[in-house]
Amino acid sequence: MSKKVFAVIGTGAIGGYYGARLHHGGNDVHFLFNSDYQHVIANGLNVNSHYGDYSISAPDLKAYHSTSDMPKADVVLVALKTTQNHLLESLLRPLLKTNTLVMLLQNGIGAEQEVAEQFHLPFVGGGLCFICSNKLGPGHIDHIDYGRITIGIYGDAGIAALEDFATDLTQSGVEVDVDQHIIDARWKKLLWNVPFNGLSTVLNADTAEMMSCEELVNLSKEIMIEVQQAARTTNTDITDTLIETMLLNTAKMKPYLTSMLLDRRNHRELEIQYMYKNAIDLAKAQGVAMPKTQALYEQLCFINNQIKSVK
Amino acid sequence: MSKKVFAVIGTGAIGGYYGARLHHGGNDVHFLFNSDYQHVIANGLNVNSHYGDYSISAPDLKAYHSTSDMPKADVVLVALKTTQNHLLESLLRPLLKTNTLVMLLQNGIGAEQEVAEQFHLPFVGGGLCFICSNKLGPGHIDHIDYGRITIGIYGDAGIAALEDFATDLTQSGVEVDVDQHIIDARWKKLLWNVPFNGLSTVLNADTAEMMSCEELVNLSKEIMIEVQQAARTTNTDITDTLIETMLLNTAKMKPYLTSMLLDRRNHRELEIQYMYKNAIDLAKAQGVAMPKTQALYEQLCFINNQIKSVK
Repeated sequence: MSKKVFAVIGTGAIGGYYGARLHHGGNDVHFLFNSDYQHVIANGLNVNSHYGDYSISAPDLKAYHSTSDMPKADVVLVALKTTQNHLLESLLRPLLKTNTLVMLLQNGIGAEQEVAEQFHLPFVGGGLCFICSNKLGPGHIDHIDYGRITIGIYGDAGIAALEDFATDLTQSGVEVDVDQHIIDARWKKLLWNVPFNGLSTVLNADTAEMMSCEELVNLSKEIMIEVQQAARTTNTDITDTLIETMLLNTAKMKPYLTSMLLDRRNHRELEIQYMYKNAIDLAKAQGVAMPKTQALYEQLCFINNQIKSVK
Repeated sequence: MSKKVFAVIGTGAIGGYYGARLHHGGNDVHFLFNSDYQHVIANGLNVNSHYGDYSISAPDLKAYHSTSDMPKADVVLVALKTTQNHLLESLLRPLLKTNTLVMLLQNGIGAEQEVAEQFHLPFVGGGLCFICSNKLGPGHIDHIDYGRITIGIYGDAGIAALEDFATDLTQSGVEVDVDQHIIDARWKKLLWNVPFNGLSTVLNADTAEMMSCEELVNLSKEIMIEVQQAARTTNTDITDTLIETMLLNTAKMKPYLTSMLLDRRNHRELEIQYMYKNAIDLAKAQGVAMPKTQALYEQLCFINNQIKSVK
């Protein structure tokens, strides 16, 4: 148990779960709630988990409706969807002090650098969560399986803080991998997310349906190769073997609905900026084109416009 | 009026219309019917048209249920969808004699060469129909508007026969353009069909919805540029101006549902072999890649598999 102050922005399926784990480990965790605020004040934060259910209620639950009311934090877990990152200017600023470690538990690529520049931070961390967790209702999280997290940092000055945070997580019972350069981990996750999230969303199909079509497997692989080539522009090495392994594993998986397809079906904005546009732009800046990824991105823009126009 | 024997394979919205026009012009036209055969024997072939309604009944109607019963023809109009071209071996062979002009009134590219090789013909013609015509029911065709046809030939030995056929059409009141090299005309039609048929089908959208999304207009244009580059491999010149004009016209058009999207909605097999695969293969044989067209084709394969698996 550390003496640090932890803040969680976005207390949903991800932020609520890891925040509760840290709290369970004896840490001082402060949670920001939006629409759930009144409900959790009355009913607490409740996590169902195969590790055992866990609830935090008043006065133990430090719940807030505005980050202006929260103490400045040593570690901030940002677990918003990236479509909400335009809110960070107002949400994050009040929590920052010298050497605050901001951890972006988000999909996609490029947000750490963006946040570092926006807030003039010497380093910003990122986390990739390999977890099956859903929000069932206000302040009510269902942790179904897994929970391992890969963390890394943008800005070498933050490596010590990152290692400290890894220890906090481990002591709270969370499995952690440290992949110091967060961009390596992000490209490896994009390797699967770029083809399968996008194509499943455009074609309204689960992974099993997709893998049953030879031409679509071919297209998925071609897009993976584009991601592999894009990753090389930031010195991230993705092996051909990793591509083949991911395809084989996807073919063996039970039918799976990607998060982006679920977003589409639930009329939620798609995370295309950080999962597609930033990757394409990073590669393009180094003279590497991603034509098939770009074509998929442009189709997703169309679907995203439809979703936004209905709201 | 010529003394030639005309045969129509596929007496639907296209074949029925042009066959009836030739018959109205005094020509000897023999029609092949499939499921409509019994109905037309009893009720005739009926064309509603803004040029005036026109019916052909027994004994004037020369209707057949098998090409084996038909006389050998001077001109055969093939108006099947390209998804039925595997039937040509049995349908077409009985009609052929020396110098029969086969005219493929079909979408896509590459079928003239294929039929010429398959049947050892010195030339095969093709036609692109700019017509708004629907089949309302058995032997009942509704010609709504337009009707101009662009015809050309594969195999220079057929130019005289093509010109003769153009005269037959003109004398029957059909507007005709002769674009001697059919492949030029086919690439120009693909220039619009490849982006708009495919993307509208994948995204289940009409042209107006598509043109309202900046990224999708960009993707459509990028695919058109791939078609332009592919066309150069067969010495067909498509100007940048034609691309810009087509995009402007599409933006001004009333909302339009492409034929491929209608096929998808009606669970009919998609014409992707001749509209996509053949174009990609023609370009590839000359070292020209069409990555975005290929990605779109692979998505269409997935949708086409879904359609076929339901049948």
